Amino acid sequence: MTAFCAEHLTRDAFLGGRLHLFQPRDGYRAGIDPVLLAASIPARPGQSVLELGCGAGAAVLCLATRVPDLSSVGVELQPAYAELARRNAHDNRIDLAVVTADLSELPQPVRHSRFDHVLANPPYYRAGAHSPARDDGRALALGERATQLSDWITVAARRLVPKGYLHMIQRVDRVPDMLAACEKRLGSVELLPFAARAGRAPHLVILRARKEGRAAFRLHAPVILHDGPRHQEDGESYAAELNRILRDGRALEWPIS
Amino acid sequence: MTAFCAEHLTRDAFLGGRLHLFQPRDGYRAGIDPVLLAASIPARPGQSVLELGCGAGAAVLCLATRVPDLSSVGVELQPAYAELARRNAHDNRIDLAVVTADLSELPQPVRHSRFDHVLANPPYYRAGAHSPARDDGRALALGERATQLSDWITVAARRLVPKGYLHMIQRVDRVPDMLAACEKRLGSVELLPFAARAGRAPHLVILRARKEGRAAFRLHAPVILHDGPRHQEDGESYAAELNRILRDGRALEWPIS
Repeated sequence: MTAFCAEHLTRDAFLGGRLHLFQPRDGYRAGIDPVLLAASIPARPGQSVLELGCGAGAAVLCLATRVPDLSSVGVELQPAYAELARRNAHDNRIDLAVVTADLSELPQPVRHSRFDHVLANPPYYRAGAHSPARDDGRALALGERATQLSDWITVAARRLVPKGYLHMIQRVDRVPDMLAACEKRLGSVELLPFAARAGRAPHLVILRARKEGRAAFRLHAPVILHDGPRHQEDGESYAAELNRILRDGRALEWPIS
Repeated sequence: MTAFCAEHLTRDAFLGGRLHLFQPRDGYRAGIDPVLLAASIPARPGQSVLELGCGAGAAVLCLATRVPDLSSVGVELQPAYAELARRNAHDNRIDLAVVTADLSELPQPVRHSRFDHVLANPPYYRAGAHSPARDDGRALALGERATQLSDWITVAARRLVPKGYLHMIQRVDRVPDMLAACEKRLGSVELLPFAARAGRAPHLVILRARKEGRAAFRLHAPVILHDGPRHQEDGESYAAELNRILRDGRALEWPIS
């Protein structure tokens, strides 16, 4: 499949309507994860950004919505998602170059570039370890194919300038794999966990690492998604700080501790 | 030095006076860390326990105070600390065999034994990375000598029965080293972080891992040591749950989530 038909798409608002994205109705659909990932990146105007596995573009387009004048590239294996990312960038008047390619076979212009920031929201499930997805595109986006998490981090490390930042969002159970992959390739590793409620085990984590970073590893206090001990009402009820990120398009400030 | 003189020792109460330990006045002195480590271990009466680097015996003796009828062995490199551990066990009427040995050269009876539990509170500082300690014993106990953290975990993994547990308390910045050392040797790894206050970055962590364990990696919500946003009064002011562990000698129940 090289493109989605119009009737298979929805148009969804992100960042309180600052960004609108077409997404496949039944394929991989962005939740809050790419929004949190984009919010966590300390990019400055004029910097260069590479998203690995950009899908329909949610993360990199959220980032470009918050930080102007970025030079942004997205790499996406699946042609239909890559085409959707191009369309979404165009419709939101964001300058994004989308390259249809496998991570392990990046085209020469990308291989010859270095970036201030690399971001990625790699598939959360190992191949074979999850229920069958409803379409092949979603299966590819959620499952892991032959590409290992360590490959994502290896490719990211190669594409960063010295002191450049990698940010990656993943499930907590992949933390050992992520830390092992960073070993000898990236430093100044920090983990920012996300928990549904105070006192609950975190289920998601954003990894931050820097090329040639030398600071000690840091684990931050979890970001709590929802106030109160349990679900209180219908619909989403995010904590106030989360709403500033998800609805007002603000940055996720990393704790200084 | 093979023994401490009486005037260089203090006698200190642990677990609300259930346990009294002689400790060197100016050497390595147990804080709450070995007490938390001991409280975190799900040992049952009749099981076998090995503490690597037991010092004056705080952790293993706290555990034996809570759980009766353990078969306990402590290994300690420094003869003066090993002797103190023997004395502390005897004075508290706890059956503890203390072996004076280097981790890398365990004597045959220990090398030929397998244990249900291994615990360790390895030195927190890398050699050369900390200020000089006041005595050599303290320097050895706090610094790392030639022994790497990975050696502690390798030795622990070898001494465990199948499904046996390792518990190790360490500074958070050593998490990547600990996880890397567990890789291929231990599974079902869990991290329980400890933070001084709610919202602060955790500074300590207890690693739990099982020999032949196959469960996914888990990161738990931090245990908060002190109530309130900052230090409120003179002296210690631990959270109620902490006082149950430190003063009442209760177990630290791991979250089920």
